[in-house]
Amino acid sequence: MTTDTLEKTDFTQLIEDLAKKGRAAQRKLARASDAEKAAGLRAAAKAIRTDSDSILEANAKDMAAGEERGLTGAMLDRLKLDEDRLEAIAGAIENVAGLPDPVGEVIDSRSSPSGFGLERVRIPIGLIGIIYESRPNVTADAAALCLRSGNAALLRGGSEAIHSNRALHAAFAKGLDEAGLPSEAIQLMPTQDREAVGAMLKAAGLIDMIVPRGGKGLVARVQQDARVPVLAHLDGICHTFIHADAKPDMAREIAVNAKMRRTGICGAMETLLIDSHFGEGEKVLAAIADAGCELRGDERAQQLDSRVKPADAEDWDTEYLDAILSVAVVDDIDEAMEHIAAHSSGHTEAIITDNDEAAQRFLAEVDSAIVMHNASTQFADGGEFGLGAEIGIATGRLHARGPVALEGLTTYKWQVKGSGQARP
Amino acid sequence: MTTDTLEKTDFTQLIEDLAKKGRAAQRKLARASDAEKAAGLRAAAKAIRTDSDSILEANAKDMAAGEERGLTGAMLDRLKLDEDRLEAIAGAIENVAGLPDPVGEVIDSRSSPSGFGLERVRIPIGLIGIIYESRPNVTADAAALCLRSGNAALLRGGSEAIHSNRALHAAFAKGLDEAGLPSEAIQLMPTQDREAVGAMLKAAGLIDMIVPRGGKGLVARVQQDARVPVLAHLDGICHTFIHADAKPDMAREIAVNAKMRRTGICGAMETLLIDSHFGEGEKVLAAIADAGCELRGDERAQQLDSRVKPADAEDWDTEYLDAILSVAVVDDIDEAMEHIAAHSSGHTEAIITDNDEAAQRFLAEVDSAIVMHNASTQFADGGEFGLGAEIGIATGRLHARGPVALEGLTTYKWQVKGSGQARP
Repeated sequence: MTTDTLEKTDFTQLIEDLAKKGRAAQRKLARASDAEKAAGLRAAAKAIRTDSDSILEANAKDMAAGEERGLTGAMLDRLKLDEDRLEAIAGAIENVAGLPDPVGEVIDSRSSPSGFGLERVRIPIGLIGIIYESRPNVTADAAALCLRSGNAALLRGGSEAIHSNRALHAAFAKGLDEAGLPSEAIQLMPTQDREAVGAMLKAAGLIDMIVPRGGKGLVARVQQDARVPVLAHLDGICHTFIHADAKPDMAREIAVNAKMRRTGICGAMETLLIDSHFGEGEKVLAAIADAGCELRGDERAQQLDSRVKPADAEDWDTEYLDAILSVAVVDDIDEAMEHIAAHSSGHTEAIITDNDEAAQRFLAEVDSAIVMHNASTQFADGGEFGLGAEIGIATGRLHARGPVALEGLTTYKWQVKGSGQARP
Repeated sequence: MTTDTLEKTDFTQLIEDLAKKGRAAQRKLARASDAEKAAGLRAAAKAIRTDSDSILEANAKDMAAGEERGLTGAMLDRLKLDEDRLEAIAGAIENVAGLPDPVGEVIDSRSSPSGFGLERVRIPIGLIGIIYESRPNVTADAAALCLRSGNAALLRGGSEAIHSNRALHAAFAKGLDEAGLPSEAIQLMPTQDREAVGAMLKAAGLIDMIVPRGGKGLVARVQQDARVPVLAHLDGICHTFIHADAKPDMAREIAVNAKMRRTGICGAMETLLIDSHFGEGEKVLAAIADAGCELRGDERAQQLDSRVKPADAEDWDTEYLDAILSVAVVDDIDEAMEHIAAHSSGHTEAIITDNDEAAQRFLAEVDSAIVMHNASTQFADGGEFGLGAEIGIATGRLHARGPVALEGLTTYKWQVKGSGQARP
């Protein structure tokens, strides 16, 4: 379908048509068994392997266009597919096929005061819109998670990956078809016009949830404009607090890992808080600086290592996603938790300490989606949490929080099993 | 505080100030134990009993003003308080005090692949805005449910109940104070200016969730304008389907009850679907008509009883909240479920049948918050479901669905308990 000349009202109609198809397919999918959905995903993985030549050819087009448009090396790397990456994509789909089906799980069951039976049963949410940027693997990952949980998906990827996304989507849909599942459950937006995204965001009642995956600008725009509920992941301004009673070696090792293992992920530490009573702050900072990280700190932090530059007010609210760390020395756990309350984005915060009471207070009182004791914030990840995958890490407070996998893509209904009860 | 002359920007500031106070109080409340919160609610109930004279006096002012403004008898009845109703309000607060505290409940716990411990723990949502209309009991009910679940509340009731709400709120806050809890956890909006409601709806990041309680117009406006997540209850266009294999007596009794027990509640049946193979449709319709209900039906329904008037297209999408019922005769369960999919508001639908296979299909395939077998839709209620209370019945799909009580007022955090893990 070519839709480049559509008027604004036509985009509303386009989304309505896509939603209608997606919802009809979802109703069929809802009747598929656990085994049928798993088989569908395995067929999709197989189709991606079979069609690898045409997918890589499509990707080469995107890469050539990206180079022409002057994309940075990092952006081109995110965009690039090769045999290994394609195999990883197929493997990830098979991995999702192997996860337990959340649909049909009885969350709780009880007898009502009037004697009828009551069960809350997990069901799919319905039609989920996924809006994402340049990584083509999201096309397959998101499709797999939605399908496994019985949902339909409307995927809208970035323009720079359009040929790759179309090829991956075509293979995925072919696999579903071959397995006898309704391939329209997974649709790719047929136009890259931004007006169509606007229409998606307004499609309350047609699309049940939007999951934006991408940078701050994308997520903020989605949150600003959406009338459909959004499961959003904003910044990851993650803190690690080294308490007075931390083991020095553990503190150093975790701090270096939390910052430097991969600096570009949302679970990377962005601010280190050091208790003034912790004896080996110098060694921790030296190790981080030696690993190639720029340090920006308050006055006391600057006294710990000469490489620490003065931090300005903005630093405490910045997600660097780079080899830069802000460092503050605090008097005690209260000051640390106040700093976190003022500057955290509610993603992940960790305390390093051997003092159980302090750890317990930190875990209880710090109000973030993930709170950690004696572990690296880089573990903030659905796979590391044993969820098998993730569609994102939610920093909002409703529905699902932290790493979101299959359970977060379900809702529930109440089933009442009566024997003729009328209400008195 | 008199705020009748505030400018629009001042309302944003007002909400910011109220939110700041409420959030600070919530942080204190979060440290209160189960027993302390229960004691606070009992003290609030006691204060309402002690201050009954001043509350009834305030209510008399509202009643006089309402009569002057020409409120209908039904509206005045909703507004009115007397000793019995005040005792019911106090009793309801004590009832909430007796419910189990959801906060701190471990939803699940596991070991991660890297060997750290993982728990998901229930926590309060934070600051909840409640926007409601003329029933003053909502002031106490909503305050009690929010406090029991560790949340702060910002209450904004209807202008016609303003004196009653202020008096109830003052007593409630006095009780919290006496019990040593932060009374600013429960705040009443100090102005009735609608601009302040607008500012509430925009206060993303300050208010965590808005619960509108009231008529369609109110809820629709809140959903349209809110940037804060909304837990909304829209229409209750509830269906009952009498299947071919229904027991005639049960079908008749449940149908009359579902429509006529109380016609003004959201769980009242608005449309009756009768299988053409059910033998005693005439008797069911006769019983409903004899109970004083107007019937509007399709052609086949009109043939069942001469009192059935022709229904027009709008009838199938109308929540009458009155002694009016739309009736359609359908060929089978598929046609019934298609009708429901096209016209239901996703609230509550019931099937009456002795056929387990049909019941199972209906419960599985009808996509409403509550689906029932052999029971009256009038049971759609948190109290009847054994939840002890309800803040509303959510017809959305995310976060909480159906009757929402304490659990729906919580979210969760992930607690990671490591032993020095760095991510490889």
